[in-house]
Amino acid sequence: MKPIEDRQIKEDDQLYVLHSWSKQKDVDPKIIKKASGIFFWDDAGKKHYDMCSQLVYLNVGHNHPRLMEEFKHIGEVPLSSPGFATASKAELARKIIEVAPKNMAKVFFANAGADSNDHAVKIARMVTGRYKIFSRYRSYHGATFGAGNLSGENRRFTVEPGLPGFIKFETPYLYRESIHFDSEEAAAAFYVDRLNSQILYEGPDSIAAIFMETIPGSNGVLIPPKGYMEGVRELCTKYGILMICDEVMAGFGRTGKMFAVEHFDIKPDIMTFAKGVTCGYSPLGGVIVSQAIADYFDGHVLMTGLTYSGHTVSTQIGCATLDIYKDEHLVEHAAEMGDVLAERLEQLKARFVSVGDVRHIGLFAAVELVKDKQTKEPIIAYGMDYGKDTVGLMKKFVGLLLNQGFYTYSHESSVIIAPPLIITAEQINEAMDLFESALAMFEKEYLFSDQKLMTP
Amino acid sequence: MKPIEDRQIKEDDQLYVLHSWSKQKDVDPKIIKKASGIFFWDDAGKKHYDMCSQLVYLNVGHNHPRLMEEFKHIGEVPLSSPGFATASKAELARKIIEVAPKNMAKVFFANAGADSNDHAVKIARMVTGRYKIFSRYRSYHGATFGAGNLSGENRRFTVEPGLPGFIKFETPYLYRESIHFDSEEAAAAFYVDRLNSQILYEGPDSIAAIFMETIPGSNGVLIPPKGYMEGVRELCTKYGILMICDEVMAGFGRTGKMFAVEHFDIKPDIMTFAKGVTCGYSPLGGVIVSQAIADYFDGHVLMTGLTYSGHTVSTQIGCATLDIYKDEHLVEHAAEMGDVLAERLEQLKARFVSVGDVRHIGLFAAVELVKDKQTKEPIIAYGMDYGKDTVGLMKKFVGLLLNQGFYTYSHESSVIIAPPLIITAEQINEAMDLFESALAMFEKEYLFSDQKLMTP
Repeated sequence: MKPIEDRQIKEDDQLYVLHSWSKQKDVDPKIIKKASGIFFWDDAGKKHYDMCSQLVYLNVGHNHPRLMEEFKHIGEVPLSSPGFATASKAELARKIIEVAPKNMAKVFFANAGADSNDHAVKIARMVTGRYKIFSRYRSYHGATFGAGNLSGENRRFTVEPGLPGFIKFETPYLYRESIHFDSEEAAAAFYVDRLNSQILYEGPDSIAAIFMETIPGSNGVLIPPKGYMEGVRELCTKYGILMICDEVMAGFGRTGKMFAVEHFDIKPDIMTFAKGVTCGYSPLGGVIVSQAIADYFDGHVLMTGLTYSGHTVSTQIGCATLDIYKDEHLVEHAAEMGDVLAERLEQLKARFVSVGDVRHIGLFAAVELVKDKQTKEPIIAYGMDYGKDTVGLMKKFVGLLLNQGFYTYSHESSVIIAPPLIITAEQINEAMDLFESALAMFEKEYLFSDQKLMTP
Repeated sequence: MKPIEDRQIKEDDQLYVLHSWSKQKDVDPKIIKKASGIFFWDDAGKKHYDMCSQLVYLNVGHNHPRLMEEFKHIGEVPLSSPGFATASKAELARKIIEVAPKNMAKVFFANAGADSNDHAVKIARMVTGRYKIFSRYRSYHGATFGAGNLSGENRRFTVEPGLPGFIKFETPYLYRESIHFDSEEAAAAFYVDRLNSQILYEGPDSIAAIFMETIPGSNGVLIPPKGYMEGVRELCTKYGILMICDEVMAGFGRTGKMFAVEHFDIKPDIMTFAKGVTCGYSPLGGVIVSQAIADYFDGHVLMTGLTYSGHTVSTQIGCATLDIYKDEHLVEHAAEMGDVLAERLEQLKARFVSVGDVRHIGLFAAVELVKDKQTKEPIIAYGMDYGKDTVGLMKKFVGLLLNQGFYTYSHESSVIIAPPLIITAEQINEAMDLFESALAMFEKEYLFSDQKLMTP
C-alpha cells in the first residue's frame, strides 16, 4: 500500500478505530516505524527492547527474513476452503504432531487463541457427552463467550451472565497463599485434594473437562508447584475427565520446551495453541487432540467448523515458522537464555524492596511488585486493573520502563517479561539494566518517596 | 514452501487434520491444484465453476493478481499489536466507514465472522447495560459460544446448555409459512407484531440487542418481506434496543449493494462483517458501530480485545481488497449479474417440478428443492442435515452438480448459489446450464424414478 504520513495514520486511527481495553479518549498510540529482531523504533525515533514480544507472540522476533520471504510465495499453494486438502494445512498439522507430546494425533485449526479454546470445549463435550467444564480463577483464555467464560478474572464479567456448567477452581498461587507449606509437593497435594472434593461436589460424571493454562500467563506466570499437574492428571484419569491444556501463550518454545506440558510428567488429552505457531505473522490457532479423541471422530461427526479452519496463507506461514524453531534451535536457546534471565530476576528480588516475587520458566517471566515486602501489600488490589487504579502506580512504572526503552505491559501488580526467543544474553542484560534503572526511579519517585523504605 | 506430492498431501491430511462437520472416515477431500477467477481445477484435472465462492467469501475470485501482488509487499507496514496505530488498520477502518451507512463511525477489528459476532454482543451489553439478546431461528452466526448461541439452527446444540438471556424469535420464511398473506407488507406487519409481543413478554428494558443476519445466508437466503426490516428498526428505536445486522455473508457487494442493509430504509446501530472484507485471502472480521456507540466508548472502557485485533497483514490485504471493489465496480456489476441469475432462477422454478422456490438478491441465491411442488414436502426434513439424511437425496444432487463442474453446497433442501462477483453473464448462463442438466438427471434418477411426476 501507498505510504501514509504518521499524522494521517494517527488521525484516521483516532477517528475510525476502536481500541481494546480502553476509553477511546485516553488512546494515544505510537506507530512502529521500523522493527528488527528484538527491537522496534517508534514514530518519535525511539528504540525499544520488545520485552513482551508484542503480545507474547513474536517468538522469532520482528521482521524475520524467512517469514518476510515466505509472504512472497503466497499463492503457490492455492487458497482453499476447509473442505479441501491443502499442502500447507496438511504439512503444518504433521509438523505440529511431530513436536507435540507422543499421545497427540490430530489438529483442528482455528483463527486464534480464543476461538481455539471455544472449540476445545465443544470437542470435549462431544467426546464425553458431559457438559460441565472446570477452569480456574486467575486464568485468561480469551474474549469470545466460551473463552471468556473459561477465564477466571474480571475480564469475564462482560460475558456474564455466564454459561451454565462452567465451574471455577483455584490456581495455586503460593506467593499469596495464606497457608504455609513445607514443600511444593505439600502445596500440590493440598490443591489437588481440594480439587478432588470439588469434583465430587459437582458430580464427576457430569464433568467433561478440566481446562487450564499450563502456566497461567496474563495473570502473572503462575508456575504450578511440583506434583500439581501430575495430581490433576490423575484425577482426570480417575474420573474420565479430559485434561485440556491451554498452550496459547506458553507453547512453541516460550518456556524453554516446545510445549509447557513437557515440564511435567503428564499427557493432556487436548491442547490449544495460537500465538507462537505463526508468531503473529498471520492469524492462526488450533486444537490438538489425542489419538483416542481422533479415533472417536472417525465414526462421529465433528459438529463444529469455521470458514478459515486451516487457512491456506496462515498455515503456510505456520510451516515456515516451525522450520525456523527447528533450524535456529530456538527452543533450546530459550532454555539457555531463561537461565540468564532467571539470574537477573533473582538478583532483582534480592536487591529491590518493591520486588515481592519473581517467577520465571524459560523466557516466560513476571516480576510482582509490592508496596511492602513484609505484608506483601500489592500495588494494585485484585481486579482493579480497569478500575480507578489504572491511572495508578503500575501505569507509572510501565511508563518509566517505556521511557527507558523497555517495552512491556503489566497485569495487576505483575510486569510480564517475555522477549522474543532469539534474544541474546547480552541483550537480556542490557534490557534488565534498563529495568533496574526504571525500578530504582519508581521506588524513589512514587513508592517510597516518604523515605519510609528505600532499596539500599 | 516446497512442492508436495498430492498423495503425500492427502495422506498427511487424513492422518493429521480434523475436518469440520464430518465423520473423519468419510472425509475424502480433493485438492485445488490451480485456480483463476471463478474457476478452479482439482487434482483429477477437473475444472469447476466455483458457484459458492468457496464459503461465500471469494468475491473478487480466485488468485486476484492485485491481492497476489499485495502479499509481496507485506512487511512494508511493520507488524504491530493492537495497541499501536498502524497504517493498514487506520486506512482500512476509514475505507470501511466511507462505504458503510452514514450513521456508522468506528470499526473494532476481530479475526472472522464468529468472534466478530461475539464482540458485537459484548459491545451491545456494555452500551445498554442490558443483558438479553434477541436473535432468530433459521439463522447461523458462527461456531464460537456467543455466535453459536445466537444461531437459530441445530448447529447451536453443541454450545448448549445455552447462554442465559439469549432469546429466539422467528425469521419470516414466507415459502413455508402456514398462513397466506395478501402482500409482503401484510406478512411483515404480522411478524413485526409477533416480535413486539415477544419483546413485551421478555421485558423491553432488559433487551440489549436484536441480532439478525440482514439476509440469512446459510439457511437458504431468506429475503425479508417488504417493510419487515423497517418494522424491526422501529421496535428497536421505540424500546431503546440496539439493532445489530450480521453482514458477514451478505456484506461487501454480495447482494448488489455494498451492504445488504442498503436494500431497506434502515440504519442499524451495529454491523458485523468478515468474509468479503478480505475475500478470505487473509482472516479478518470486525464490528462497525454507530456514532452514538463510538461516542459512548470515548468515556467508557471498551472491555474486550484480542491479540490480532486489526492484524497488520489482514488489514493490509483488506485495503487492497476494498480498492478492487471500487476500481472494478464490483458492487454495481454484482447487481447487474444478479438480474441475469434471477432470470435463470425464475425459469428454473417455472420449468422444474422439483424446484419449490428460488430466492435471490444480487449474486446471493438459493434454490429450494421439494419432493412435491403442491405439498412442498422438503427433500430433507428440518434439522436433519447432519442426521441420517446426510447420505440422502440432497447429497446426491450436490454430487451430480459436482460431476457437472458446478461447485457449491446445500443446507436442508436449499442449494446455495453465490459465485464470485466478477462472474460474467456468459459464465452465469454456462453454469446454470450445468445446473439444469444436473437437476434433470436428479429428477429422473432419484426423485421421480417411479414416473409419478416428471419435469415436462
